Amino acid sequence: MENRITVAVDAMGGDNAPFEIIKGAVEAVKERENVSVLLTGQEAIIKKELEAYDYPKERVAILPASQVIETGEPPVAAIKGKKDSSIVVGMKAVRKGEADAFVSAGSSGAILVGGTTIVGRIRGIERAPLAPVIPTRDGFSLLIDCGANVDARASHLVQFAKMGSIYMEHVMGVKNPRVGIVNIGVEEEKGNALVKETYPLLKECKDINFVGSIEAREIPSGAADVIVAEAFVGNVILKLYEGLGSTLISKVKEGMMSTTRSKVGALLVKPALKETLKSFDASRYGGAPLLGLKGLVVKCHGNSKALEVKNSILQCISFKEQEISKKISENIVVPAKEKEEL
Amino acid sequence: MENRITVAVDAMGGDNAPFEIIKGAVEAVKERENVSVLLTGQEAIIKKELEAYDYPKERVAILPASQVIETGEPPVAAIKGKKDSSIVVGMKAVRKGEADAFVSAGSSGAILVGGTTIVGRIRGIERAPLAPVIPTRDGFSLLIDCGANVDARASHLVQFAKMGSIYMEHVMGVKNPRVGIVNIGVEEEKGNALVKETYPLLKECKDINFVGSIEAREIPSGAADVIVAEAFVGNVILKLYEGLGSTLISKVKEGMMSTTRSKVGALLVKPALKETLKSFDASRYGGAPLLGLKGLVVKCHGNSKALEVKNSILQCISFKEQEISKKISENIVVPAKEKEEL
Repeated sequence: MENRITVAVDAMGGDNAPFEIIKGAVEAVKERENVSVLLTGQEAIIKKELEAYDYPKERVAILPASQVIETGEPPVAAIKGKKDSSIVVGMKAVRKGEADAFVSAGSSGAILVGGTTIVGRIRGIERAPLAPVIPTRDGFSLLIDCGANVDARASHLVQFAKMGSIYMEHVMGVKNPRVGIVNIGVEEEKGNALVKETYPLLKECKDINFVGSIEAREIPSGAADVIVAEAFVGNVILKLYEGLGSTLISKVKEGMMSTTRSKVGALLVKPALKETLKSFDASRYGGAPLLGLKGLVVKCHGNSKALEVKNSILQCISFKEQEISKKISENIVVPAKEKEEL
Repeated sequence: MENRITVAVDAMGGDNAPFEIIKGAVEAVKERENVSVLLTGQEAIIKKELEAYDYPKERVAILPASQVIETGEPPVAAIKGKKDSSIVVGMKAVRKGEADAFVSAGSSGAILVGGTTIVGRIRGIERAPLAPVIPTRDGFSLLIDCGANVDARASHLVQFAKMGSIYMEHVMGVKNPRVGIVNIGVEEEKGNALVKETYPLLKECKDINFVGSIEAREIPSGAADVIVAEAFVGNVILKLYEGLGSTLISKVKEGMMSTTRSKVGALLVKPALKETLKSFDASRYGGAPLLGLKGLVVKCHGNSKALEVKNSILQCISFKEQEISKKISENIVVPAKEKEEL
């Protein structure tokens, strides 16, 4: 028999909440019998939304939460101040073991802060990185860290490399994933102070398949499966990916609509082009996991539709089945300093 | 009468040297009567190449240089060791005032090192940033710094903002250019330590049009004319721009070639699409200036063709006519520490 899994889902978070979130949650429980969801948020609203669907009632419950954390709110104050928000209530359910995972399309900042302060880090993990999957020419890569916790140390990046490697192998199914560090050249002596310090440490790691430095130019062609970067750099890469992708696609559309001749051509090209570009759509991979916590937290895009919410929930199944938290805990050496403290 | 200008051009640098370089140089002197070029490199080779063209002999001379610095060579050693290389000879011509500018598609590292050590920085300039022009949806922006000199301080970024602003206004013709700093959020309190320290300093600058933080997502849509970043981040942005651009274009082509129907459509779409995508081609803006030096140094792409070389040479005209070095020198306050030293 399959493992049962319970996922708390933030019904109030994201641009398309509650409609798309609840739709995605219902689709997930209908698709996989071993999944239960706990919808966190304003009970009356959630109940009303659920009326539209036919679904297995015993696997969809509501965890009432009266408050909503808005995207613009300062994260620390929001997590501390709104104890009855859908994010805090969902994360507490994970901490208490009532849920295995929490999925939210809400405020990134609040999710990052709540992940560390409510769910809590695995013993020995210094920082919990946000690790979205980004599309590449023929597949995808994991970009770790894209969180808000910038100015990382070398020891953080080493943990990111190991956690990312475990996640890619056991959740995303990439055998012996190639781990690269983002750099401004491929030679070992290149880089900023952080990369120069991290490089030899990664080279020494026996448990990862370190392929060295990769330049940002090579990321879209899939030069590494796990792309390690300090959060500021990772964030820039992720957002430029989104911005440049949409600008180029709109340029292509503009070009196709510019003459009568090209408009006719566009009609013929459209179906095939749509198929190809779909492979460059990040939403089909689900949201980004926040790794290294005592339970899984998944951050979906703010503009997530039901498909991404559903995929994010289903992604939690492999995470639990593969015992990722246990693997992270066993494989990542506890730094001497923290060992003493514990 | 127009100002006369002499540009030293590295005939040996880049993937397409000497053919495309010399072709571009000849085209530049033919296009503008006030331009003279000094081709630096191996005399016999350059002479032979020149035989193919009809050009005003009095405005094309050869500055013999027997050595060539290869792309892979460690830059400092190359500049010190190869005194008779086309790069060192060209830069010395600028230092001695025999040339106003130096244009090269050769080793970036050697050009950056040579710029500072041979041409030399303007008094008070702490670092010479490399500032390429990148295409945006409806125009272009200046990305400053993309050099190899990473881990900058806040005072460096402030100088970059001012120099970039002067260059965009007086060479590229953008009135009152909007200056933004690359950040992971738009709120003033966001950022890494460097950005947090730099932000208030930029806000205080009366001589630039500071528009605050910009996220990488907004760069392609043209949210700022001058994009200030520490070199590691700038380098990542520049290279991801190149890599993602070519990956997406190849995906679009692949989609168009995937079915018979789409192949027919592709034929109709092609001319219009080519025109639109041309606006996203960086080479038409010429190379990237290395700013803050006692003379202009322009780094062209390694794979430059004649068009980029020609445009880079012509770009030097505005640089001289607008007295950019003088403007930089007058507008950028000499930091107190360096003032004492001088």
